[in-house]
Amino acid sequence: MTGQLVSDEPTTAVLSGAALAKEIRAGVTAAAEALAAAGAPPRLAVVVATDDESTAWYVRSIAKAASKTGMQCDIVDLGPDATAEQIRSRLTELSEDTSVHGIMLQTPLPGGASVEDLAASIAPEKDVDGANPVSLGRLSAGLPAFVPATAAAVLELLDHYQVPLAGRRAVVVGRSNVVGKPAAQLLLQRDATVTVCHRHTRDLAAHTRPADILVVAVGRVGLIGAEHVNPGSVVIDVGTNPTADGGLTGDVDEAEVAGSVAGLTPVPGGVGPVTTALLLRHTIESASRSRA
Amino acid sequence: MTGQLVSDEPTTAVLSGAALAKEIRAGVTAAAEALAAAGAPPRLAVVVATDDESTAWYVRSIAKAASKTGMQCDIVDLGPDATAEQIRSRLTELSEDTSVHGIMLQTPLPGGASVEDLAASIAPEKDVDGANPVSLGRLSAGLPAFVPATAAAVLELLDHYQVPLAGRRAVVVGRSNVVGKPAAQLLLQRDATVTVCHRHTRDLAAHTRPADILVVAVGRVGLIGAEHVNPGSVVIDVGTNPTADGGLTGDVDEAEVAGSVAGLTPVPGGVGPVTTALLLRHTIESASRSRA
Repeated sequence: MTGQLVSDEPTTAVLSGAALAKEIRAGVTAAAEALAAAGAPPRLAVVVATDDESTAWYVRSIAKAASKTGMQCDIVDLGPDATAEQIRSRLTELSEDTSVHGIMLQTPLPGGASVEDLAASIAPEKDVDGANPVSLGRLSAGLPAFVPATAAAVLELLDHYQVPLAGRRAVVVGRSNVVGKPAAQLLLQRDATVTVCHRHTRDLAAHTRPADILVVAVGRVGLIGAEHVNPGSVVIDVGTNPTADGGLTGDVDEAEVAGSVAGLTPVPGGVGPVTTALLLRHTIESASRSRA
Repeated sequence: MTGQLVSDEPTTAVLSGAALAKEIRAGVTAAAEALAAAGAPPRLAVVVATDDESTAWYVRSIAKAASKTGMQCDIVDLGPDATAEQIRSRLTELSEDTSVHGIMLQTPLPGGASVEDLAASIAPEKDVDGANPVSLGRLSAGLPAFVPATAAAVLELLDHYQVPLAGRRAVVVGRSNVVGKPAAQLLLQRDATVTVCHRHTRDLAAHTRPADILVVAVGRVGLIGAEHVNPGSVVIDVGTNPTADGGLTGDVDEAEVAGSVAGLTPVPGGVGPVTTALLLRHTIESASRSRA
């Protein structure tokens, strides 16, 4: 099923991720059943080394989504005192374990441990969240690779809502290795003219306002308001900031922007569920290839 | 020695690469002598599989620069009929050869052979032209890596002429794996706001005109004219297009742009000599590390 973005309406289309995530999970469920029936049930391992509560919430949501699709998901909790060496050796073990098809290293990590450095110990063929620098390099070079799930979700949503990319102006705010940089690479691969903005950018609004596609992945509430957009902008809000009441809110001021743009992803319910579903789909891809 | 860019003059500063390249080669010469004296002469291998004449010219210029600094440079010519498998196995051999410290795979390659794919067989620690996707990924992730020499030369020139980068608008025209993409990564790492343009970009001039730093790496004569720049632009011309009289010309219309920008690299004599010198410096770095 593909949505249709109606951009000539005066209202802003809500680019929900719910239906798309459901569609992706349905595919995962069918594939997981087939693999299990063939004696090779797909399995995802999420390595955690923090007691951060919002991380725990996110990891449980992955496990819950996995269990709904019939996929095994192990939460490998090494605790907040794990050393970089312990994390590395566990990633190496999981990389060698033929019953594990997807490996994800959750951040934040204990002080001194660098995700870029440790993720190099995740076998590229199991690197379902595209964290190994090899994956990022293969993406950048245009070779097949797992793409970080959040960045992949941005593109899935744009495609689902049939947003044209080739030759259009895409502006990415934020330059993290997990979202901003890979999203910029993917948009470039799809022939958009891509600008990456960040905290050193002067006059952010001057850069974002002309954007046809605006991807915001900073983690600051209210960063993007009416002055940052134009009526034709499609805005993908990757921010997930905790609110006082235990909920989530994005980087875009939804109240201010609604009515001023063509489309906007909600938070929660936009990029998030699609990201989780794609992690599972990547694991299915890895499991299927390991049997080929 | 560092040059000084005088941008308040009505004339355009010529950002020559000659002095910078000489300075880099002087450092290489001293280091090559010391390594040779210690019984470990640095050695660069350039793998060629084409009979293209301008490639042969470029490769000879690398060998000549190497020999001036006292560095050994082997041109490994596999001929235009080499298969991908033959190239791959030679790259693997050179990667294992402890007397070789730098390996470069020259393009173009015979039909069917992909440089991105083959370069994965160059050991990352000897990948002095940053062609292995691992190198590109490490660069993108902010980890230490060899950067493609041409992209590195762009940054060396900007630094040599003390062009500020943080918070400024950098526009890169061209998205090749050897220049455009890594140059964009390097500029982003240095806190510029970076836009990448390419053949699908609509209204190129609208994107390039506001640039503080404009890097052009397309390979089309006269692509950039007066309408693409502003009086404050610093323009790095990476194009090397053969002229009818056997010379080289860049992508920037020098006659049209001169006087309209703050600074411009000449072609030849701008990025080219710095690139060659950096290939040698990378080889010295590799040779020094292999003894550590």
